Amino acid sequence: MEKIFEYVQLWEFTKNVFISIGSSDEHAALAATGLLRADLRGIDSHGIARLTGYVRLWEAKRANTRPDIKLIHETPSTGVVDGDAGLGLVVSPFAMDLAISKAKNVGSGWIAVRNSNHFGIAAQHAMKALEQDMIGIVMTNGSALVAPTFSIERLLGTNPICVAIPAGDEPPFVADMATTTAANGKLEILQRKNQEAPRGWIQDKEGKISTNPHELKAGGALLPLGGDREHGSHKGYALGAIVDIFSGVLSGANYGPWVPPFPAFIPVPENMPGKGIGHFFGAMRIDAFRESSAFKKDMDQWLKRFRRASPAKGFDRVLVPGDPERIMEEERLKNGIPLMHAVEEDLGYLADRFRIPAPGL
Amino acid sequence: MEKIFEYVQLWEFTKNVFISIGSSDEHAALAATGLLRADLRGIDSHGIARLTGYVRLWEAKRANTRPDIKLIHETPSTGVVDGDAGLGLVVSPFAMDLAISKAKNVGSGWIAVRNSNHFGIAAQHAMKALEQDMIGIVMTNGSALVAPTFSIERLLGTNPICVAIPAGDEPPFVADMATTTAANGKLEILQRKNQEAPRGWIQDKEGKISTNPHELKAGGALLPLGGDREHGSHKGYALGAIVDIFSGVLSGANYGPWVPPFPAFIPVPENMPGKGIGHFFGAMRIDAFRESSAFKKDMDQWLKRFRRASPAKGFDRVLVPGDPERIMEEERLKNGIPLMHAVEEDLGYLADRFRIPAPGL
Repeated sequence: MEKIFEYVQLWEFTKNVFISIGSSDEHAALAATGLLRADLRGIDSHGIARLTGYVRLWEAKRANTRPDIKLIHETPSTGVVDGDAGLGLVVSPFAMDLAISKAKNVGSGWIAVRNSNHFGIAAQHAMKALEQDMIGIVMTNGSALVAPTFSIERLLGTNPICVAIPAGDEPPFVADMATTTAANGKLEILQRKNQEAPRGWIQDKEGKISTNPHELKAGGALLPLGGDREHGSHKGYALGAIVDIFSGVLSGANYGPWVPPFPAFIPVPENMPGKGIGHFFGAMRIDAFRESSAFKKDMDQWLKRFRRASPAKGFDRVLVPGDPERIMEEERLKNGIPLMHAVEEDLGYLADRFRIPAPGL
Repeated sequence: MEKIFEYVQLWEFTKNVFISIGSSDEHAALAATGLLRADLRGIDSHGIARLTGYVRLWEAKRANTRPDIKLIHETPSTGVVDGDAGLGLVVSPFAMDLAISKAKNVGSGWIAVRNSNHFGIAAQHAMKALEQDMIGIVMTNGSALVAPTFSIERLLGTNPICVAIPAGDEPPFVADMATTTAANGKLEILQRKNQEAPRGWIQDKEGKISTNPHELKAGGALLPLGGDREHGSHKGYALGAIVDIFSGVLSGANYGPWVPPFPAFIPVPENMPGKGIGHFFGAMRIDAFRESSAFKKDMDQWLKRFRRASPAKGFDRVLVPGDPERIMEEERLKNGIPLMHAVEEDLGYLADRFRIPAPGL
């Protein structure tokens, strides 16, 4: 049961909700644009479905809608930003703009962020670099759901990495991925449908591979990309760890099992060593390495070669990272965004509560 | 059948071989140290077993042992190095030193390299940053053995990523991994033993998952980390692609299916768009983000928490990336390096050919 909403309807509504919980007009617009970018790109788990979650974080006084976001340490190419417990959707554009500005000055810019919250999809932040003829790199840590190889403990978040690379005539390369075999959102879909999970996605509380999608509630864990040691899970574990250290340890945020969870009803961990959750943003100017036109010519050739590669039997064509999301974004901007009934109900609740018009009314 | 050699014996011999093919004394020492670092750390496929391969590259005039290595483009935090077709073992220390020197000046340094050759194990270059209280990041592309998700074509190398992160009292974090499910060296071991490969390592020429370790010779391909789409191979594919673009496209080296192969008997691809193979080196000063002592305190806590995590049944303990290699390095420095008989024979051949003493004589 899905109903279609126009992007602008959802944007107006989302902005009004953020204003209702105290955001400035400017911050509310930024947060609405950021949150809905996930819905546009088809990452429904990270979009407007999370709006009530943001409101609950604010209610729990864990998200500050009037943050004083500050650069607290810097060199010509690096820096650390303290997000003052602000929404990640607002803190992150500040940090990414700083990375871009440093790249303009000295070739590259790298900003670690502490004291932030969930920032939506990583791709939206990394893709800001594309407009400036730069490569964008974005990471964030999250609360622990993933067990390192050989362990039964959940010590890492799904810790995504995004890299966006500009091109000439071809659409750009945009890889945005959790460092687990499967994102938590995909598991939630199986839970709702009561379907088995493929082997390699999760383990039970004793560390055995399981296909029960409800295993996480029974002390199990998501698995790092690779699934088990024989299939390279130690590499997925290493990638998730790198994201955690760059985002959490380098910034002075929390890390590992101490990263506070997004759902406000789950208590924050005891003895947190840092502040909030952490992100990491990078920008590298293309012409800090090569003449931009020469790079773009080669990048176009790279993209064409991969997009036109011979597909295996049963597949139409070979994709480049970011292709499905780009096609979805064009489609949903034109034809609207479908929302599940449960999400529509959540929005109705928010409309009542803040006495603002529900979207589509 | 293995015989044990002392590190210094192998080092002297390897240095003499590099001098015999024209390297300066300084370059030969650098190359010997670099190559043998793989044997010390237990990555036998990348060490002295490849020495004859380097000699054949020089014979085929594809490796220049008197290179004029040059920084050809730079900004305060970035640059491109042309390796003049030199040995990657010699070009890479030059480039990594530059990255470190830029990081000293402006917080971080990023060097893309073109016109190089195989550089041994990535970890040795990244770990140079540790001594300077910096994070080291190293990538390289390689000739195409890996099929992108949904494709039957081999378009990417095993393209490793290495990240080395310093700590205080705890041993450092050093992740060094191919972006495939299994490194090519592991497949070669199965080929020799005629054993089946686990599902998810390779596919046949039609793109079907195969367990035949000889599949690569019959038009098959290695698979990206994840194995298949359901297990996240599109993420391994994206990682390998990022390494290829950073190393090859950003530097003006070759990329994708055009990267020249290491074995000199395989002809180089036609219409190569760039020069040689490409690498990417990065260094970030810890104190460009946070006070170094505060970072190290947190990093020690991170490492302790993961090293002391509860293991799953059947496992002794949880490892941090780099632990097995560090333990092996200590062991082999003390007790020597075992070489397979076939490798010992290769060294005997080189000793005869260049009229130098064979190791152990």
